[in-house]
Formats: sequence, C-alpha cells, structure tokens
Amino acid sequence: MKPKISSECYASEAEYINALERRAGLPAGFSAGSVELSFQPYEINAPKPRVMRLSAIVLDEPTGLFAGSLTQNAFPGAPVTIARRRLEGETLRGVLVNNSIANVCARSGEKDAEELLDAFAARIGGSGREFLCASTGVIGWRLPVPEMKAALPSLKKSLQTATILDVARGIMTTDLFPKVRAAMAGEAKVLAIAKGAGMIEPNMATMLVFILTDADVDRETLRRLHREAVAVSFNRISVDSDQSTSDMAILLSSGKKKVPGEDSFREALLSVYGALAEDVVRNGEGTGHVIRTVVRGAADTRTAEALGKAIINSPLVKTAAFGNDPNVGRIIMAAGDFLGTSKTNVDPGSITVSIGGHLVFEKGSFSLDADKEAQIFNHMKEAQLDPDNNRYPAHDRRIEIELDLGAGEASAAVLGSDLSYGYVRENADYRT
Amino acid sequence: MKPKISSECYASEAEYINALERRAGLPAGFSAGSVELSFQPYEINAPKPRVMRLSAIVLDEPTGLFAGSLTQNAFPGAPVTIARRRLEGETLRGVLVNNSIANVCARSGEKDAEELLDAFAARIGGSGREFLCASTGVIGWRLPVPEMKAALPSLKKSLQTATILDVARGIMTTDLFPKVRAAMAGEAKVLAIAKGAGMIEPNMATMLVFILTDADVDRETLRRLHREAVAVSFNRISVDSDQSTSDMAILLSSGKKKVPGEDSFREALLSVYGALAEDVVRNGEGTGHVIRTVVRGAADTRTAEALGKAIINSPLVKTAAFGNDPNVGRIIMAAGDFLGTSKTNVDPGSITVSIGGHLVFEKGSFSLDADKEAQIFNHMKEAQLDPDNNRYPAHDRRIEIELDLGAGEASAAVLGSDLSYGYVRENADYRT
Repeated sequence: MKPKISSECYASEAEYINALERRAGLPAGFSAGSVELSFQPYEINAPKPRVMRLSAIVLDEPTGLFAGSLTQNAFPGAPVTIARRRLEGETLRGVLVNNSIANVCARSGEKDAEELLDAFAARIGGSGREFLCASTGVIGWRLPVPEMKAALPSLKKSLQTATILDVARGIMTTDLFPKVRAAMAGEAKVLAIAKGAGMIEPNMATMLVFILTDADVDRETLRRLHREAVAVSFNRISVDSDQSTSDMAILLSSGKKKVPGEDSFREALLSVYGALAEDVVRNGEGTGHVIRTVVRGAADTRTAEALGKAIINSPLVKTAAFGNDPNVGRIIMAAGDFLGTSKTNVDPGSITVSIGGHLVFEKGSFSLDADKEAQIFNHMKEAQLDPDNNRYPAHDRRIEIELDLGAGEASAAVLGSDLSYGYVRENADYRT
Repeated sequence: MKPKISSECYASEAEYINALERRAGLPAGFSAGSVELSFQPYEINAPKPRVMRLSAIVLDEPTGLFAGSLTQNAFPGAPVTIARRRLEGETLRGVLVNNSIANVCARSGEKDAEELLDAFAARIGGSGREFLCASTGVIGWRLPVPEMKAALPSLKKSLQTATILDVARGIMTTDLFPKVRAAMAGEAKVLAIAKGAGMIEPNMATMLVFILTDADVDRETLRRLHREAVAVSFNRISVDSDQSTSDMAILLSSGKKKVPGEDSFREALLSVYGALAEDVVRNGEGTGHVIRTVVRGAADTRTAEALGKAIINSPLVKTAAFGNDPNVGRIIMAAGDFLGTSKTNVDPGSITVSIGGHLVFEKGSFSLDADKEAQIFNHMKEAQLDPDNNRYPAHDRRIEIELDLGAGEASAAVLGSDLSYGYVRENADYRT
C-alpha cells in the first residue's frame, strides 16, 4: 500500500515550494533579500573557490521588540558573542546572515563581523550596532570580508517586502528543503524560517531560526513567550546530540498590528515554533525516520524531557529505527541507562512502554508476540522517509514511542531522527 | 606505504590465535570449559532456531577473594541482580556464562537463572548460591532453561585446567575476535577475557569481563585495586555511549600464589585491564578507527574524563574520524558543548588542541595550514582499520587527540571509536 500524502506534505517539490510561497509573505514593516557571491577561502592554501549566500532581514524602523535564544556552547561563534551584547540593547533594525562559513574560532572573527555590520548599516541606515549577524558553515575559517562587502550593494537591491522565501533558501547548508512556517494572531502575522540539518541538539540554540512578526506585544511579554515556546520546541529536538557553536533563534517584531490578546499570540508562536522544529528534524542530515518520544508520569518536566532525549539520542535505538527493527530491548536499555546514571528513583515494575500505540513493556517484562512485532514493524516502515522520494517531505508520519513512568504527573514530547547510512555519508566528509 | 604490523598485532588470524593460546593458560586453581547447544526461542511464534554457547569458569575450592563491578543501568538483567547479592556474600566457586540471550526484562528471569545455577552446582559441587551467572544477547527473551540444563553434563565434561581460550570464544556475540590478556605479578598470574562489541559505555559495567588470578591478595586490597583499575580502563571506553543492562567485570582469585607486593599486583591488573579495554574498542561493532582523547590541564579528573568522553561520543567527531577528515571545528564544537552545558569555567584562550601531535588550536583560534591538514589526514588514514583486513587486529594505531585546558593538573585518557557504515549495518538489524 502506497503511503498517503497527508495535508502537511506535498506530491512534488514544486507543490511544496508553492505551499511555502503561500505562507512566506512578510509581516508589515519588514523587507528581506538574498544574493550569491563566490570567494577564495583565506586559511588553506589553494582550496577550491566556494559559493556563499548573503541574506538580510531589515525592519523599516528600529524596534525595541525583540528576543533571542543563543547557544550554550562555551566556544560560541563571533555572531553569538555579538548577539549576546546586542540583545541587551535598546533597539534592533535587522539581521545579516551568511552560510558557508560559521565565523567560529577564526582570528579576528568579531572584528570582521563588526566591520561588515558597519558597512551594511552605512548602506541601509542606522548604526552597525543595531544589526545582528548570523553565520553557519565551516568552523575555523575567516569570513571573506572584502567579497562580502562588495556584495552589499546587490544585497540592498534584492530587498523586497513581499516574501521571506529567498532568505529561507539563502540560509540553507545541507538542508534538503527551505523551511517556512506561519500563523496568524488576529491581524498580526508570525512568520519563521530555519536553517538546520546537523548539530541539532537542545539547550538552544541549535540552528538558525528567525521569527518575524508585526504583533504589538510589549517587550517583556514577547521575551517570556519566546522563551516558553523555544523550551518546548527547538529545545526538544535532537538530530545528533551536538549543540553547535553558532546557533540562535531570534524573534523580531515591528509592532505594527494589534493582537486580540496574549493567548492568541502564544498560540501562534507555539504552532509556528513547534512545526518549524519538526521541519528541522525531518530535514536532518540523512534522516530516514522522525521519532517522537513522549514521556508521561514523570516526577517533573525536566526528567521527562531528559529521559526522552536519552532515548532518541541512543545510537542503538537510532540504528534500530533505521532498520525498522521493533527492538524494545534497546528502548529499555537506554531508559535504564538514563534512570540509573541519573539516580532517578523509578520502580521498573510501574513503567509501561508502547510503540506505535502497541503496549510492549509492562510489569518489568516484555509484552510482545509475533503479531504485535509485525504490526510495529509496519508502523516503523510506514514512518520511513523513502530516500528515492526525498525532494519534498515524503509524509508527516513518525515512529511514536511512549513511556509512562507511573511516578508523577509531568510529561514531555521530544523529536529525534534515526541513524542511517545517509547520516554517516553526509558527515564523514563535510567539506568536499 | 603499507602500514607496518606492530608487535601487538599479527600478520594473520591464525597468528593472532596462536598469540592468544600462548597467554591463555589458566592460573592455578581454575578450570574452564564451553559447549554449544541449539534451542527454539519461547517468546516469539516460530522464529528460527538459535545457537547458544554455554561456558563455565570454576574454582577448585570456594574462595573469599573476589570483586565485581556491575552496570548502573536501572533495568539490570537477572544476572546483575543476582551478582549484586552474591558479591556481598562470603565465598564464590565460579561463573556460568551464556551468550545469545541476555535474560533482561524476561518473565521469571531470576527464577530461571537460579534454577540453572542450582542444577549446575548439583553437578559441580557446592550450592547454587556460590555461583554467579552472566548472560549476553537479545533483551526480553527467556532463557531456554530445559535445553541449557540438558547441556550441563557436556559442559562439565568440557572443563579443563589448561586454557581460557574456549571460554573467550564462547562468550562472543558480534565480537570480531576473542580477547585474552595476561600478565604476571611474580609467580602469580592475572588472566582476563572480555566479551564486548556494542553498548560499550562508562560507569561499568559495559561488557562481560572475567579476570582470574591465583594471587594471594587479601579481599579488601583485591576489591580496592579492582575498583581503581576498572575506573581507568573499562570505565574510560565508549563505543556508542550506551550502557548495557547486563554487563559486569568480575575478578576471582584462587589465592594459591604469593605476590611480591601490592605494587606488582596493581601493575599487572592495570596492564591487563587497560589492554583488554582497548581490545574491546578495537573490536567494536563496525569500528573503523580507534580514537584516543587525552585531556590534560583540567581542574579535576572527573572533568577531564567527562570532557574526553563528550568528544569521543560526539557523532560529528566520530563521522569525521571515519572519513579521515581533520575537522578541528567539530572537536571544538563538542568540547564547547560539554564545557558550556556543564558550566565548567575555562578560558577558551588558554586551551590548546592537537591531533596526531600537530597543534591545531591555540589562543582561541585555529592553527592550521594545508601542509598540517595533509599530515593530520595521513595520521588518521594510517589509523584506519582496513575493512578488507579485519580478521585480526590490522594494527594498534589510534587517532590521537589531545586537549590541554590550561586550568589545572588533572588528566584522563579515554578510548572510543568512529561512526561508520559498518556500525549502522551491524546495528540496524541485530536479530537477523
């Protein structure tokens, strides 16, 4: 039986892009653009010339309505260090983003970035200190500042007020698809794009995410709601348990539209952040299956979330998922490893585990027979992202794992991916 | 240039086995044996019949000289639960080990194991409570107790006092090679075998390890030295960051030979445990490279060890190693992720990183040029375990990563493996 194409997926890449185009309209008060440039990397003798996309998101007027979540990595890139300062400031006017080079651990990384932002501000208006920068790509190399500065006039020319789609494409590295999500809160729009396909792990920020809105919500509320939404979306996904040095999720508001109330804005944020976070996993490098683990009955949310992540990050669970192997033992192993190592007090006899809605573990032992195994195999097989069909999301199904610890009321859902040949291929030689 | 075969490696599988035979002689006071049986698994309707090896290590007389380290997994197998009790007891007479089924989360797992041990003791002497059992293999299935009991007469017949080699073979699952290490402390011998190729991670016990000695060392000293040696060997390796539900390292002494002193016995333990731990990594499922990470200049050993493990467990570092990609950025990313998340206070400017003896990071930025990259590529390439040559350890080289945090005097060395297509292949369909 051929899997059905659900309402969130598309029968061809062209239809997927059409759907993005329909939702990609910019909120009031923003313009966006993207250009391509080529450069010769400085650091290594005579490597191949490379292509970079330079993109910008610009507000018509400086805004005080912004919020950001930044990586916790101890060796952050220059853009993160700069953002940490700017997010404490009064106003922002936009973001300059490049792919190809991450500007991490490069000599004079901050100086290079500030020089670019000053040059950008000189063309756009305002001061360099009112702009953020974001970079993704190879770590350790210097930005090609002269080539990037030379591209600024065309970047300015590319700015338009219609769509974010070019920027969503411009920030991609190994992503399979551009990623755009949108929702309305009354008349106000929430529009978000993400780059992210590897080094995807918790603790914010694990990718580049830009959320644009025209909602008139005060700064403190904006920051609180952003933090809450990040905590249950981008901080609950993991492709490979590696937290990048570069990543950030930045929310900018032009404040031009009234919203019906805080709840409607929160709903819009949660739906956009949640959907975009799942897009990132489904676009993960070499992802063959999306896996969702829901942990219920935990003493607190932190335990539920950490246990869920321990399961979706276990290489043995991930490879079993890749092989459509209903290997209950590895889920139990990973859960037991986390619970034992973290000294979490749980009675194995009170835990239940199900896969795809089928109960597979209760009262301390397996609950499996051949029929159930076959049904779970089918559940996993149907969640497989067919590699011959990977030009648009093949479907929106997941492997669904549920654990109930029977030890409390807290719960959390986390999303991860399997571990495939494709992941190894993609990552074993990133730079060639 | 063809890699040289070092003194620890062998030009053919036959020569490797010859070397094991030379070191596999049992210490005084022990006998060992192994038999094969076939069985029909209970749990799943009409699966294929399977083969199991049942092995035993038996002391001539009960001994009070024993020590053990057990998995911290919260869902331990029945053998671990039983061992936890027995290790508190007065005397032990031996160990019964099976592969094929792990006896974890199986209905009546403890009862089945105790029934087997009673039947074994009835043939060998003593009581079932004086024997440990150990099991490795599929989780969730029941032991085939009747078939195992039926094999006990031949198991008893197989016992001999000459060599551990049959048992080293009998406990293998997906291991490429049997693993035997030995050292002398004066007249006393320390002999150890290990099973382990996946689910290899810290916190003991991550594999089955049996260490036999005839050294006359008092019980408290034996336990202390065992604990110390495990901490710097088996607890410092990781193949896939997954701590198994089953694993254990058990030391048994017949006490029949005097040792020159505690130091010589400690030396013998450390050399045997260390070499065997590296054998386990080199035999890891799909291992293409062994990676050693040495962290120096840490404030304490725990930080050095945890940081080393964070690096060798990073999927992006592991895939880069597989591809011989001198990707300094991923080492920095993984180190920064650990240091940031654990809120370890380290100045990025004081850290140095080298690969294969080449300095690649200092003063907060990369120190790389094309020549150095080429040399590091060669270092990695020479450490590659050629998949066409995997019937005996191809060589004993490793990718050597060194970090100096410049923040203290503590250091630790940890061993890990790369992430290869072979690992995915081996684990994506374990049971077929």
